Amino acid sequence: MGVDPGVANLGFGIVRVEGNHMVALDGGVIETAAELPLERRLARIHGALAELIAWHQPRALAIESVYFGKNVHSATAVGQASGVAMLAAAQGGIGCFSYTPQAIKMAVCGSGAAGKRQVQRMVGTLLGLPEPPTPDHAADALAVAICHGGGTGHRAAVASAAGASLDTVAGGVAP
Amino acid sequence: MGVDPGVANLGFGIVRVEGNHMVALDGGVIETAAELPLERRLARIHGALAELIAWHQPRALAIESVYFGKNVHSATAVGQASGVAMLAAAQGGIGCFSYTPQAIKMAVCGSGAAGKRQVQRMVGTLLGLPEPPTPDHAADALAVAICHGGGTGHRAAVASAAGASLDTVAGGVAP
Repeated sequence: MGVDPGVANLGFGIVRVEGNHMVALDGGVIETAAELPLERRLARIHGALAELIAWHQPRALAIESVYFGKNVHSATAVGQASGVAMLAAAQGGIGCFSYTPQAIKMAVCGSGAAGKRQVQRMVGTLLGLPEPPTPDHAADALAVAICHGGGTGHRAAVASAAGASLDTVAGGVAP
Repeated sequence: MGVDPGVANLGFGIVRVEGNHMVALDGGVIETAAELPLERRLARIHGALAELIAWHQPRALAIESVYFGKNVHSATAVGQASGVAMLAAAQGGIGCFSYTPQAIKMAVCGSGAAGKRQVQRMVGTLLGLPEPPTPDHAADALAVAICHGGGTGHRAAVASAAGASLDTVAGGVAP
């Protein structure tokens, strides 16, 4: 299970590794209303994640770590959301793993400098989805899950799909 | 109930307002072992705070907000700890209030630029303790609780005690 942490919108994505490929089981965004007190927003996030963990029983929770381009205010908010997400994992008996945005892009696209659209397209390709997943936060969460689930077979699939994707871009042809 | 949030050491302090003064009911530090995975440390903090809230049934949780001198890494860690603290408050049915370090120092010492030792001394004086509370994180948490509990009578007490404290410092006499 991957999580893209945020207080207003927290993305989640659940992926199953099947042999040398992965399939998406669930994905979406937990939204919280801005007019709610912060502690209620965090309680909503915690409750929704606890339900998802109990339902899907993932093996681990993988979470995108804060990057250093963020300011202290947004780092605190992301920290609060990731804190209650990790708590839900601990209470569900699963471990947490943290990945930098660079590591996630590298795992999904084969390049730590990949753009947002490229990540979305590759997430769709790797999971065999008919089109890139939306919204952004759900796609990012699926990317973290792919990053955590990635093994040798997965890396070969990334290399192959990245090549196909580059060909597509170069040729200007829709996949 | 005041909280000075941190993952390794989270200070807490519980204060009761009685007429125009306050008394300390409880205070201390929740420590978590560095060798534990982060999600287990957060679960320990959450569990301990939930117990304290259930036991003391405070009216509110007051928490020190992250100040902008912190870097993104420490802001994230403080955010994670404050996130699970706020969650415990929401689950316990009480609201959360956040105060900047400057507001806390102003409420306790009558000056937003007060030093750490001065805050500890004033916390001890305002709560009628035989000596300044230790460790630092517990004293800071009691200071947040005092800040939240402060009304007109409290402000008069601060002005009076701050005067006494300054006299003491000037005269070099122990209180």
